[in-house]
Amino acid sequence: MPADPLQRDEAITAAVIDLLRTKGPKAVNVEAVAAQAGVAKTTIYRRYRDREDMIAAALTSLVSPPPPPTTSALQPMLRWVIEQSFNAIESGIGLGGVAALLTDEDSRFTALIRALLVEHRAALAAVFEDAAAAGQLRADLDVDTMLDCIVGAYLAERARSGNVRSGWAQRILRALWPAIAAAP
Amino acid sequence: MPADPLQRDEAITAAVIDLLRTKGPKAVNVEAVAAQAGVAKTTIYRRYRDREDMIAAALTSLVSPPPPPTTSALQPMLRWVIEQSFNAIESGIGLGGVAALLTDEDSRFTALIRALLVEHRAALAAVFEDAAAAGQLRADLDVDTMLDCIVGAYLAERARSGNVRSGWAQRILRALWPAIAAAP
Repeated sequence: MPADPLQRDEAITAAVIDLLRTKGPKAVNVEAVAAQAGVAKTTIYRRYRDREDMIAAALTSLVSPPPPPTTSALQPMLRWVIEQSFNAIESGIGLGGVAALLTDEDSRFTALIRALLVEHRAALAAVFEDAAAAGQLRADLDVDTMLDCIVGAYLAERARSGNVRSGWAQRILRALWPAIAAAP
Repeated sequence: MPADPLQRDEAITAAVIDLLRTKGPKAVNVEAVAAQAGVAKTTIYRRYRDREDMIAAALTSLVSPPPPPTTSALQPMLRWVIEQSFNAIESGIGLGGVAALLTDEDSRFTALIRALLVEHRAALAAVFEDAAAAGQLRADLDVDTMLDCIVGAYLAERARSGNVRSGWAQRILRALWPAIAAAP
């Protein structure tokens, strides 16, 4: 067992995420997490009320995007949005997490992740709001639908081909730019 | 057992699709299909070489798009592409099928579905090729990435919200039109 309490926190979080990604939400329970993290179950119950609380804590740290770039130029801001959409899956809930959402494999997990995704999405939408206020966006832009196109393009390419060709963020930026940016 | 051989074919196909959508590819085997379709296993083996052959036959009928509209106008053609992308999931492999592709739940199923999706995609890409030849598309359009944005927008909205708001095809058409159509 890791001696340092902070290391124990990290070991628990890492175990939750690893189990979620590799085996799906149903595999994430206190017993399995304790075994994988090398801690006692009581160590987990001292920190978290229950399974859901434990999962929520691990996921919150994952899906919080870093602050957006400090620039007023649309292109780097849009690139940040695209990269965070990618990260929410690739470094976040994983394709196992997405698959569990699509099939509603575990309704408590679904509700938990969807609440976190609302927060994640609001952080990305805020970047669009700033750009709109600066007159940089098409007046008729539907931000929700556009965010779905961005993150969805990643899901579709993974589903149909098993991987994502290099330069994904740049390809998406080029493909969607005329639908997002105000005409020069 | 349905007396008519054609009815038996239909019952087998319906059982394959229903099991795939509701329980995922691992649940689709000759025994389960025979039970659900109300036919003997020998009835299935008389028609199909094995499990894969049976699944392939059922799926091929599903993912073949109807012929595109006989028009040279870009908007109805693009709408057809968007609707077929939707249908490939909604009336096709289902979200259970997509989830199985994302996690590679069953590698034989994955290979089978991906081969069929290549055909489906070629039928949609052909519409873009005709429009490009007629000078209707942006010269720099990346058709593969755009098709991923279209079908992916549906997956992303389903994953994050559990359903798709009404007027999906029209919303996608409006959102992506400036990125697809040549400037007037």
